[in-house]
Amino acid sequence: MTNDSHILFETALRIRADAVAAELRLLLDERILPGEIARPGHLMAAMRHGALNGGKRLRPFLVMESAALFDADAEAALRVATALECVHCYSLIHDDLPAMDDDDLRRGLPTVHKAFDEATAILAGDGLLTHAFDIIADEATPLPAERRAALVLALARAAGPGGMVGGQALDLDAERNKPDEAGIIRLQAMKTGALIRFACEAGAIIAGASIADRERLAEFGSAIGLAFQLADDLLDLTADAETMGKATGKDAAAGKATLVSLHGADWARSQLSGLVSQAHALLEPFGERAIMLKAAASFVAERNS
Amino acid sequence: MTNDSHILFETALRIRADAVAAELRLLLDERILPGEIARPGHLMAAMRHGALNGGKRLRPFLVMESAALFDADAEAALRVATALECVHCYSLIHDDLPAMDDDDLRRGLPTVHKAFDEATAILAGDGLLTHAFDIIADEATPLPAERRAALVLALARAAGPGGMVGGQALDLDAERNKPDEAGIIRLQAMKTGALIRFACEAGAIIAGASIADRERLAEFGSAIGLAFQLADDLLDLTADAETMGKATGKDAAAGKATLVSLHGADWARSQLSGLVSQAHALLEPFGERAIMLKAAASFVAERNS
Repeated sequence: MTNDSHILFETALRIRADAVAAELRLLLDERILPGEIARPGHLMAAMRHGALNGGKRLRPFLVMESAALFDADAEAALRVATALECVHCYSLIHDDLPAMDDDDLRRGLPTVHKAFDEATAILAGDGLLTHAFDIIADEATPLPAERRAALVLALARAAGPGGMVGGQALDLDAERNKPDEAGIIRLQAMKTGALIRFACEAGAIIAGASIADRERLAEFGSAIGLAFQLADDLLDLTADAETMGKATGKDAAAGKATLVSLHGADWARSQLSGLVSQAHALLEPFGERAIMLKAAASFVAERNS
Repeated sequence: MTNDSHILFETALRIRADAVAAELRLLLDERILPGEIARPGHLMAAMRHGALNGGKRLRPFLVMESAALFDADAEAALRVATALECVHCYSLIHDDLPAMDDDDLRRGLPTVHKAFDEATAILAGDGLLTHAFDIIADEATPLPAERRAALVLALARAAGPGGMVGGQALDLDAERNKPDEAGIIRLQAMKTGALIRFACEAGAIIAGASIADRERLAEFGSAIGLAFQLADDLLDLTADAETMGKATGKDAAAGKATLVSLHGADWARSQLSGLVSQAHALLEPFGERAIMLKAAASFVAERNS
């Protein structure tokens, strides 16, 4: 990616991120809770702390851009994107807990259990996860019920025991039973890949695109999900905590094998370049309309924080 | 309730509970996970430990009986009932964690974080919650997409920050900021009432019943939800740990006010009897068809474990 493209892409990403943050703020405001009912102000504040932390909002971006590829309803795309970000943020809150990764910092700020307490962090994660399905299933998301149900199902699959949560469990086991290379690839496809794959597939579902297009977007998502993880492992090996805003070198410290630790940084960079080509090729049929998604693939592979 | 009715009801409850347990076993079997993907066997075992623990399955019973009231599809009702039980069991797993209620026993068995570990218990809860929405949204649940979406929404509302999770957060706060009587009622309506209300309302949604009938069933659910909590508080005050299969007297030990501790056991028994009458009156329009649900209301108020 040229420097100009890089700057243009990052601007677009930031604009989308602002829209998602605004929607999150609205959806996680206490006003959404029925007036008659007591307001768990502490919980809502913890949910906002975990969700409104200045993230890059890559997954929502992918939802919105894959939806735009098919001229899908932008409001529906924004709502689904926001729901997905709720799921992503819940997973970070629970991942950071003392019983899990035990992280004190996330993007340079105290993690939710540090800013509040452990019990509140557990509930804030639970609340964000549950609220995500509320957002998608709600009639305020302007989509036919069939698509809302399909999105709930695809998101639950991506986030559940056969997806992200299953991958996290395998990751915990990996500290004891070292997985082989195929095991690492499967673990990562579940732990980080499934949600990114869903993000790209979601646009096609929102638009009611053909099965073939839905599958194409999902494959694109798989490719960049794999690239995302490789880039992450590479950064864990090479970056410092200040650039990342969180602890680094943790994989090695935990004795966790990654593809990068097995094959080295040069191999990883060549794999990344192959994945980007593959991702770009999948979008060829869409021509110029896919420029933003192609830039996202390059960005994911080349990011340095 | 006469002794005969009591025995008949408990038999019906047990038959339904067996059907739910069988469905849970099927849905939480590793076979549901795609063959290509690595199997998080540890996680699935923890989910089964938390879900297949011989519970009374009251909430699923209410779903199935409220669905039967309207001659709704029984297979659909069983699936929604099972999904709701996944949500109930996830909430117990997270509630029992050291950072929350810190309980070692649940129905006489080690809690999930004791039988496995804390990280696995957090993920098992997350997995059950997520899988519940998978079950409802899935086309294998034989309902029009509109009803599947409506059920996802109603369940997410009942379980989310405006429902159960919000109630749990208020309950945590209650140890610090003692709520007044109205506060306790609202807290309990959210913490335990919302899911029981959903259970009763769900039957009407599954059947595509009228808004008026849906509202009537939801009100019935609210009444027995309140009765459930009063009976629970009464038991916490009077029963011993052996009968309950879990620690008792915890509310008083934690300095938590309940309606029963405020007004005494006699008051609670009279309230319970009033709630049962109210619940029964709500079902009058359904005549003999509602006998089982009426028995459920009596059972909830009179239960001694």
